[in-house]
Order: sequence, then structure tokens, then C-alpha cells
Amino acid sequence: MCPAKVADNDIRGWIIPIGGGEKKVRSSAILDRFVQLSGAAEARIAIIPTASKLEDTGDRYRAVFDEFGVSRIDIVQLEDRRDCEDPERIGALQQATGIFFTGGNQLRLATIIGGTSVAKVVRSGNAKGIHVAGTSAGAAFVCEHMISFGRGGPTPKSGMATLSPGLGLTNRVIVDQHFRERDRHGRLLTALAYNPFTTGIGVDEDTAAFIGPDDMIEVLGSGALTVIDASDLEYSSMAAAKQGKPVSLIGVKLHILIEGDRYDLTTHQAQPGAH
Amino acid sequence: MCPAKVADNDIRGWIIPIGGGEKKVRSSAILDRFVQLSGAAEARIAIIPTASKLEDTGDRYRAVFDEFGVSRIDIVQLEDRRDCEDPERIGALQQATGIFFTGGNQLRLATIIGGTSVAKVVRSGNAKGIHVAGTSAGAAFVCEHMISFGRGGPTPKSGMATLSPGLGLTNRVIVDQHFRERDRHGRLLTALAYNPFTTGIGVDEDTAAFIGPDDMIEVLGSGALTVIDASDLEYSSMAAAKQGKPVSLIGVKLHILIEGDRYDLTTHQAQPGAH
Repeated sequence: MCPAKVADNDIRGWIIPIGGGEKKVRSSAILDRFVQLSGAAEARIAIIPTASKLEDTGDRYRAVFDEFGVSRIDIVQLEDRRDCEDPERIGALQQATGIFFTGGNQLRLATIIGGTSVAKVVRSGNAKGIHVAGTSAGAAFVCEHMISFGRGGPTPKSGMATLSPGLGLTNRVIVDQHFRERDRHGRLLTALAYNPFTTGIGVDEDTAAFIGPDDMIEVLGSGALTVIDASDLEYSSMAAAKQGKPVSLIGVKLHILIEGDRYDLTTHQAQPGAH
Repeated sequence: MCPAKVADNDIRGWIIPIGGGEKKVRSSAILDRFVQLSGAAEARIAIIPTASKLEDTGDRYRAVFDEFGVSRIDIVQLEDRRDCEDPERIGALQQATGIFFTGGNQLRLATIIGGTSVAKVVRSGNAKGIHVAGTSAGAAFVCEHMISFGRGGPTPKSGMATLSPGLGLTNRVIVDQHFRERDRHGRLLTALAYNPFTTGIGVDEDTAAFIGPDDMIEVLGSGALTVIDASDLEYSSMAAAKQGKPVSLIGVKLHILIEGDRYDLTTHQAQPGAH
């Protein structure tokens, strides 16, 4: 699914993929900034724990947001596709100022939410200014083209990344998460090798890409953001690659960005922060 | 990539995925209708033979369009990504009234054209009224989410279809081609099982889905169009499916349409023709 249209008088909300590592994320400045963007004490945060099969995932994040001083927190349980048509759950999402997708399995998100009224509400809400953050599986899901699963390793190989349609808040990036921790450089390069129209961002744990309404990324957190810019790619051998064999990619540009650094998805320029 | 925005005063061109079977297609009413839509004797057809590695593919289609009375035919050879920035080739595409993608390998199209100026010109041209047809690999490529490769068989199985970003003239459909001839029912169901937000269309050889500016499909040709409507899907087990194992899908609606039948991608209603 592709991004919803932002009306002339509206400003899109921030899109915030977080690289996972739940224990670290829960105590970090990342969620604090998400809360500040969403209105601080006035924020109304909706938590969607659908990616996780653990029953207490929503409650654990409720406690975190509670500590940040958020007064109104809704856990929007979506266990099946019928739940995604329920007026009460949809109402909670419509009244949120910030929506948070937990980690788990991004294919639970896509198979349960994809094509439902909940998907429409989150997409149109973001186009009208609601901020949407997701950690781990929730980070993968924000993209038009989502990495649904794959294998680790440094070298791109045919079949190493499996793409499928995500929620589609943005098509400017393909997100990979737990990036350094799970050795996913090859997997993200593989995803781009199919069609280099977009930019790959690999997000380490306890690290987030704050993607502003102007498609400027700001990095926050203790790890790095790996940007794979394929906009000047000269050659990809993916069309000829045999399953499991390495893929040739010529002319990729790479940036490793840390907290305070910025990346403009429109001009493909990186800007160092004040370190 | 997602569809280019159609300006208020413009009408999108037709999008015409053809199921392949080159010998049959070359003599069929499908290309004749494409030529008529594109201006008949006044048509200017640009042929993009990039999917094919055979040197004479462009010339063979030039001969076909010549027989249909098209006076201006350009073969736009795009052998690598640099060709896709060449002003002369881009100019030929900008002046076309109809653009035709031949068959071959859709990953050659995505890896060579994806993210280049040629992709932009074809996408914006279609949004301004230029008609775009593609046979076989060319049919797969018109979609936002393209089936890049996969395996045959009737039952959907995890990993049976590999998706990657296509040209993205439409996200209303995922196209599979040579549908009956290569037993691709399971592969198309697999593609939808990841995220049922879109509609699957399986196009038999010598058969085409003429997708109008209003997203109404008209079927033309000697085979069938299989429509897989997942808009009321109740359940997909894809999130839990092991590689190569069958996937559970509950609540899929299926239509088999033949020449003269129509399908409305907005309302999900099929209409029989006068048989």
C-alpha cells in the first residue's frame, strides 16, 4: 500500500521506526521524544500490540508511557481481522495523537491489519498529523515494501530478503531493524537489489529514525542508522542471480549515522550533527 | 513504487496487463485494441524490449504494430541504468501515446528501470493519459507489488511467491500471468496471503485485463481472467506458516471472467458480459 495523500492544509505526522531491543527502548530517550511530539502530558497514545503473541505486551508499554506522564493510554487489541472493523477500537485510534506498534512478527501485523478499516484509519491519521512509531516488527510494518523475513549475513544473496506489502506510511525507505545485532547488511542490500527506487535504512537496537513531515530523518539513540542510498546505482545483477547466490551491486552509497546526524530523503544528502 | 498522482484535469491512461503467449498475442485483438486506444493510425507506440535478452524482440513487435497500421513506432532499447537517463530515449517515451513492455524477465525491468528517469516518465505519462500495455513480464511490472518469481501449483504455500517493487502504475492489483498455462493459482493466493489489501488477477495467455481510468477491468482475449478478491478475508495463516508449507486463507472470493466480462476494482463487483 502506498502513502495516503496529505491534504494541502495538513502536515503529515512523524514516522518513527525504532530498531528494537525492548528492554533498552523502554527506558530510552526515543519514547520520550515520541511522547513529546505527541503532546507530552496532553498526549493520547494508542498501543497496538498485535505483532506480539505475548498477552502482557500492551500492559508493559502502558507502564512505560505511564512513566513518561502520558495521561491517556489505550491498548488497542487486534487479534483478528474482525477486530479491525470494530468501531470502538477504530475510535480509540482516531482520537490518538500518537500510535505505537510493538515488536513481534510483522506478518501478524500485515495479515491481520492489511486492507482493513484500522489500516485506513492509521494511514489517513498519519497524513493528517498523527505520529506513528513502531519498534522491531512495528518498524518494518510502516513501509510500503516491508521486509517480512530473511537471513542474516553481510553479502546480499538472491532470496535473502522476502518483501511483502506493509502498512505503507512511506515508500521513501525500506526499514530493517536489529540491524547490527542480527547482521542484516546483506538482507537490506538484497531488498534494494530488486528495485533500487527507494532508500534502505538499517536501524540498530535502541536507535530510531525520526522521519519528519519533510522527509528529513533525524537519528536518536545509542546505536547507528545505516543508510543505503541506491539512487545512483549503476548495476544490479538480481535479474540473473540464482537462488542463494551473491548479487552484484555497483554504485551504492553508504552512510553510517549516529545520534544528531540527519539524512534528507529527497536530496539524498547526509548532514553530520554536532558531536 | 506507488501510482503517480493524476492531476484534477487529467485522466489516467489505460493499464493493460496481457497474460503472455507471444505468438498468440501478436495476431490477436488485444494489441489491436491497444492501438485503437492509443490513436489508431495516429498512434505513436514506444516498445520497451528490456525484459527480453533476445536482440530481435523489439523488431518483432515493430512488425506487429506496423501491420496494425501504426505509423510511428520507436524501439526504446534500455540495456542498462545509464540508458534510462538518456534524453533521446526519454524523449521518445514522452512523445508516445502508447507504451508497450515486451515479455522476458520482470526483474530485468525492475533492476534496470526502477528509480530512473525512464520510470518517472512512464509513471507520469500514464497519469496524464498515456496507455501502458505489457505482456508476460511486462504485465507483472505494472504493479506496485510485483511477483518477481515463484513456483507453480494449486495450493498457496509460504515462499511460493516472491514479491518486489514494480513500476507501480497501480496498486489495485497484483498480476500473475501465463496463469492457467503455468498453474499459478497457488502462487497468486500466496502473494495475497501476505497482506490482503489488494486484488489478485491471474491472466491467461492471449488474454488481457484492460484497466480503465475508472479502475474498471474489461476482459479481452481467448482465455480467462481469474480474480481473487481478498477484501473480505477473515483469516490468513501466513504469519505462522513455515517455509514451503500450505497457508490457510478463509473468506477469499473468486471470479473467473471471460471476454466481455467486467470487474470493478473499487466496488469489487463483477459484471457478466453479453455471452
